[in-house]
Formats: sequence, structure tokens, C-alpha cells
Amino acid sequence: MQIITSRDNPNVKRIAKLTKRDNARSEGVIYLEGTRLCEEALASGQTALEVIVSEDRTGWAATFAPGIEPMVVSRDVFKKISQTVNPQGVALIVKEPVAASGIPFNNDGKDIYLVLENTQDPGNLGTMIRTADAFGLTAVIISPTTCDPYNDKVIRATMGSVWHIPVIRRTMDECFDFFINAKIDTLAMHLRGSEPGSGDLKLPCAYFIGNEGDGLTDETANRCSKLVKIPMKGKAESLNAAVAAAVIGYELSKLL
Amino acid sequence: MQIITSRDNPNVKRIAKLTKRDNARSEGVIYLEGTRLCEEALASGQTALEVIVSEDRTGWAATFAPGIEPMVVSRDVFKKISQTVNPQGVALIVKEPVAASGIPFNNDGKDIYLVLENTQDPGNLGTMIRTADAFGLTAVIISPTTCDPYNDKVIRATMGSVWHIPVIRRTMDECFDFFINAKIDTLAMHLRGSEPGSGDLKLPCAYFIGNEGDGLTDETANRCSKLVKIPMKGKAESLNAAVAAAVIGYELSKLL
Repeated sequence: MQIITSRDNPNVKRIAKLTKRDNARSEGVIYLEGTRLCEEALASGQTALEVIVSEDRTGWAATFAPGIEPMVVSRDVFKKISQTVNPQGVALIVKEPVAASGIPFNNDGKDIYLVLENTQDPGNLGTMIRTADAFGLTAVIISPTTCDPYNDKVIRATMGSVWHIPVIRRTMDECFDFFINAKIDTLAMHLRGSEPGSGDLKLPCAYFIGNEGDGLTDETANRCSKLVKIPMKGKAESLNAAVAAAVIGYELSKLL
Repeated sequence: MQIITSRDNPNVKRIAKLTKRDNARSEGVIYLEGTRLCEEALASGQTALEVIVSEDRTGWAATFAPGIEPMVVSRDVFKKISQTVNPQGVALIVKEPVAASGIPFNNDGKDIYLVLENTQDPGNLGTMIRTADAFGLTAVIISPTTCDPYNDKVIRATMGSVWHIPVIRRTMDECFDFFINAKIDTLAMHLRGSEPGSGDLKLPCAYFIGNEGDGLTDETANRCSKLVKIPMKGKAESLNAAVAAAVIGYELSKLL
């Protein structure tokens, strides 16, 4: 087993470059670090393109990624790659999931979509992906301006769900073309909306949630078939975006 | 109007010290900075003990805190206090809300309590306080090990709700003594729980949510009258703590 001990080794430099999300994105890959993130990805069937471990973690590589020759580096070199003070010494490069060409569609009358327009907070996005997975939604669709779902903070907040449910980037035009054509109800979560009455929530359904500060754009809200608002009997004027996504996702999942 | 231009002015040093949460806590006060946080606190009736503005923001002080002589400092001195690169130039010192001696109790048969045992993430805590306020809960009760509700990140995430709903720190012993005595149902949110059936959710009710990673301690879960779990038809094994708090809070608020 060869242990790379030089920070100037070209493979070390190449991996270090991929820890920057912009570089990884342009190559269509994701850098994952730490046991939880790496093990979740492997357990969910992601294929490791490369496995990088510090010299004391070769056992981890043999256990979790047995089919692939790991790049083994000294602890010092791992720290240079990781740029954290106490790294766990395990990292993976995985391929970014390829977006399906269309929008996933089970066509069993039970499709539920969460559509996010311009979500900016990685923790919110990750939590919404996790919630959508928990409630059995068909897919999470994100607008072109929504933050990167393979950002480290998003992946952490999904607790593995980013590998379980399709997360695809589409324009609002593409969404409405598809939903109208497939006769899927479209609900805008909106503070000017009305509380959903009996029959307002029905499947198949796509529900739209806007930016944390500004909500949905008027353009998108106006294209939806209904504007709905979660009943709030207390004093706060609005709910956190991920909380709103959860409450409606939960109500819709009762219809599954 | 006197403008303080020296970073060594004793009042500047005193305020700078209070920007550290530990120092402010030991004096029973909270340092708030930025227009949104300061305006939310004032709009919610908090009394400013001190108003600190940079020389270009005296108009803000006159508008939002008219009854109090502001401490006016140069932009440079404000930056030293704030330790941010582009501060908004407005800050307040407010008194920490005094915890009621008991547990707030409307005794109208509709009390709902959210009890948090060892919540560690400030964003989660803030979101849960906001949600509890939105759904009209009586109070949020936090265990001794739960993070500080007047931490800057928590206050930001509450969007003002930290000033609307009582957030009180109590031991689990104090909680159960009170709930049992007042005949308030106690629900543990727990992955080993069962999905609530009709009649399982009834008011008055206290529901308990544990630490993000570990859930509720066995000791606390065992003291609750029921263990309940949110129905999840998808693949994720669990929900984010703030999402779980929202879904049950939403269901309970339907009974209000």
C-alpha cells in the first residue's frame, strides 16, 4: 500500500480542488467527507468514483467501499485536502445524480411534488428534501435560482434523503407545462391564500413554496390553481418555509 | 449630540463586552443588533435599556426608541462593537424576559405545551419557537441542557416570536409534577411510538421532543403517557426535530 505524503502530489491537488463545490459541479461530481455522509451515500447505492482515506482509515475503505482501490494519504495530507482541523479521514467522490430528462411521474393518481422557487437557505432545502422523502413524495423540483442541492450543508440536512428522492432542477415554465398537461393540481403556499377546506387538497398535486423572505413570485402564484395558507391560530404572521412544506406534505401524504 | 469616537471609551468597552452572550446572560440582558431584530423587539413591547447607533442612524433611534437617549458612536466605533464588516449601525440592550415562577396555565382545557429536551441546534430551537407561536401554543418549555433561547441565531430564526410566547427553562421533574397535577396529557415524540389514532391527540396536552441526534432520553419517554410517531409513508427513517414539532403542533392546534 502506497501512502501519499506530499501535499504537492498531483492527485492530492486534484482532490483538494474538488472540495470546492464549483469545481466539483463543473465536473459533474460531488465531494463527500466524514463517515456519516460517505456511509449514507454508499448505503443508498451511490457508486464511489474515488475513495480517499487517511493512513489510519484503510479499514473503513475495505469495509464500506470494498470494490475500489482507495487513495491512501498521510493524516497531514488529509488535513490539507479537508481543510478541517480534525477530519475523520474518509472522503468520497461520487457522480452527481443525473437529472431525468422529464419529471418523474408515477401516473397512479397519487403523485405529489414539492416545487421550490428560489429557496436560498441550505438547511431549509435539506430539511425539505428529507421531509419530502419521509412523506413519500414523487420528487422535489427546484427552480434555477434555488441553491445547489449537493452543497455540503444541504446534503447534511437531508440525512441521506438526497439519495432517495429525485431532486431535479426545472424552470417554472417546464413545471406548469408538465402539471397542466398531466392534470396535476397546483397549489401555491401563499400568505394571501385561504385555509384549505375539504376537497381543496387532492391528489395528484404539486405544491409550490417560495423564497424564505419574499415567498413565491406573483407570476408563479398566479399560475397556480389555488392559493392556500396554513391555518395559524397564534400570533406569528408566517411559518418557516420548511415547516410550511412539512405541514402540507403531511396533509397530502394522508391521501396516499 | 455627542459622538463617541474612541474605541477605548469605557461605555464602548462595556457594550462590546455584552455582545458576548455569556457576559450578557450573566447580567440578565440581551444584545440585539440590526434593524430587523431591534425593530421586532421594540414592536413586541420590549423595553430598551440602552440604544446604540452609529452617527448616521440617529434618525432610526428617534423613530423607533423615542423615549431614550441613544449612545451615538462613530461608524468606526460601531464596527468595533459589532465585529461585523458592514453593520447596520443600530443595536439595543434589552432585559432578558423574566421567567414566570411557575408554568403558564390558561386552564381553559386548551393549553398546549411544546417541551424540548436537550435541543442543540439554534436554528431548530428558533424555528420551533416560531411555530409554537404561530399555532397558538401556551408556552415552549426547554430543559436545562437546551441551548440558550437568546442566542443571536435562535432569535433570528424565531422572526420575533421569542417575544410573543413564553419560553421557559424547567427540569423534566418540574414539568411532570406540573402536568400530572394539572391533568395535562403528555405525549413523547418517539420513533418507537405508534401513529396517533383518533382520540390520541386531545387537549390539554404537552408534547415532548428530544435532541436532534438522540431523541428523547428513555427516562423522559417512559414518564410520558403515550409514545407517538408521525406517520411516514416514504423512505426517510425520521423527521427533523422542528418538522416533527410542527406537524404535531399543527394537529393539536386543530383542536383549539
